[in-house]
Amino acid sequence: MAEGDIEFVERIAEGVLRGDVRSIARAISIVENEPRLAPLLISKIFPYTGRAHIVGVTGPPGSGKSSLIAKLAKIWRKDGKKIGIIAVDPTSPFTGGALLGDRIRMQELTGDKDVYIRSMASRGSLDGLSRATRDAIKILDAAGKDIIIVETVGAGQAEVGIVKVAHTVLVVLCPGLGDEIQFLKAGIMEIGDIFVVNKADIGDADRVVLEIENILEMASEFLPQKPAWAPLVIKTSVITNEGIEKLVRSIEEHYAYIRGTSEGEFVRDKIIEELVDIIGENVREYARHLITKDSMCNEILERVLKKDIDPYTAARKILAEMLKRREF
Amino acid sequence: MAEGDIEFVERIAEGVLRGDVRSIARAISIVENEPRLAPLLISKIFPYTGRAHIVGVTGPPGSGKSSLIAKLAKIWRKDGKKIGIIAVDPTSPFTGGALLGDRIRMQELTGDKDVYIRSMASRGSLDGLSRATRDAIKILDAAGKDIIIVETVGAGQAEVGIVKVAHTVLVVLCPGLGDEIQFLKAGIMEIGDIFVVNKADIGDADRVVLEIENILEMASEFLPQKPAWAPLVIKTSVITNEGIEKLVRSIEEHYAYIRGTSEGEFVRDKIIEELVDIIGENVREYARHLITKDSMCNEILERVLKKDIDPYTAARKILAEMLKRREF
Repeated sequence: MAEGDIEFVERIAEGVLRGDVRSIARAISIVENEPRLAPLLISKIFPYTGRAHIVGVTGPPGSGKSSLIAKLAKIWRKDGKKIGIIAVDPTSPFTGGALLGDRIRMQELTGDKDVYIRSMASRGSLDGLSRATRDAIKILDAAGKDIIIVETVGAGQAEVGIVKVAHTVLVVLCPGLGDEIQFLKAGIMEIGDIFVVNKADIGDADRVVLEIENILEMASEFLPQKPAWAPLVIKTSVITNEGIEKLVRSIEEHYAYIRGTSEGEFVRDKIIEELVDIIGENVREYARHLITKDSMCNEILERVLKKDIDPYTAARKILAEMLKRREF
Repeated sequence: MAEGDIEFVERIAEGVLRGDVRSIARAISIVENEPRLAPLLISKIFPYTGRAHIVGVTGPPGSGKSSLIAKLAKIWRKDGKKIGIIAVDPTSPFTGGALLGDRIRMQELTGDKDVYIRSMASRGSLDGLSRATRDAIKILDAAGKDIIIVETVGAGQAEVGIVKVAHTVLVVLCPGLGDEIQFLKAGIMEIGDIFVVNKADIGDADRVVLEIENILEMASEFLPQKPAWAPLVIKTSVITNEGIEKLVRSIEEHYAYIRGTSEGEFVRDKIIEELVDIIGENVREYARHLITKDSMCNEILERVLKKDIDPYTAARKILAEMLKRREF
């Protein structure tokens, strides 16, 4: 790395630690677009992380996540908390960037310098949460945000990734989803610490609450032991403000619960996941490079194409080559 | 591997190559549940793969994918084609197994020995398509199926994985999805070779066709060059049979197009992806083992927990340990 780059990254890291908004924005751009510089940046700020409460918010499109997050943020601001919001959007096929539509609902927050809002593309990555998102959380954490809200859009397995980063996971549903509830059972029901039935002012929210409670009860019968935290189900409306205050306090209660019981284990598990992800990504990248560029590994690929060897055998051979070279 | 295991796997592989239904079922169970035996099984059948046309079918829940697949299968059966159908379902949190609800719609096919239907759990894997699913496709291919239909349920990024295995990808939508269309733009619109507006007998299918065409046109403006295959949009109804025959012929036309132009490159790209996935998974598994079980790597983890080193530095150190040991 050039000396200029090192100085540049160090200056940004210092800015982040001061909570400077422009430095935060630049730092997140680095972890998004400059994989070469990201490790240095993260090494500088990492000692100052681990202080924020990370709240994941997921649920199907149209369940009103963004408006709800705006409400939560406003209450926490009144409590004097500094807020970071990361909205992870499916990558647009047209621009490669993130969709900004829903973000409009958060506009009323943008005048406040202690609320930092950033939209990030999921880049089709594992579980819909990229390394860049994880690093952005670290940046906001080191910048002194008390609560970092990570919103992911979706209605399937992809959203499960949120548990890899959040202390508290909200699953936001609403009346009128129909068949979706049935579908959601599979992917999302197991990850929620708090289930929010939003838009309680329209439609039959009580029925949705009942459905969720039934599913949770059924699920608990399959568990080997009762979980110490029984998931809550809370009805909310951003129009009538029903349940909003209760939701805020429940989120805080869950965080207190985590800190009081299993935080050590919790942090440990997340770091293990992160290490495995970084190692896996590095190795995948190097493997792809070798297969396409290295003559020996390319030969192995050709043998698979000729059906001379199968993919498992080929993968073993390429791994052996990787080990010989020790380049990664 | 014990000699008994080897014999067992070889016998099953032989059965698969004969097209024996019980052997196919057992072989898929092996790739699902016996990762230790799967590589041997695949090595035996791999030389006989590469003959089937693999058709991916994806789209949001409720768009009628299963009924549509049943229709397609019946037409292809009349043409004398042997069919395999793999339905990839989100893993149920309760049983660990796959949801079988929709499968009921395919029941009318189950009397036919030349239609093999299997439901598989996605196991929360990368892109919602697990290694087991890929191997199951190889098994059906080696067993002599002419067309293998892979159905994935979902409405987000997770479904993009289908392009890793299918020659032809159908994206099935229908009237009445509302906001979903907006959402689908991001993940699914870029992967379809053919867009199916199903349930044309209910609701305003023409409006949906128009919306899709608009999105595709917008998207094409962002592409550096016109794709050689312009995605088709076809209205269908399994009630009135509108568009079904046209859809079947369009799928065949797409396959002919792939074979006539880019099949070599196509197969090459898929094999590279598969090798990278296998290598990545093996390395991740070994890394996780070392981090949790090996004292040296555990020490590295502890240093991260103490914020003494950051995750990127730790990942490099663990990789160095892995290379020293050369055990994976």
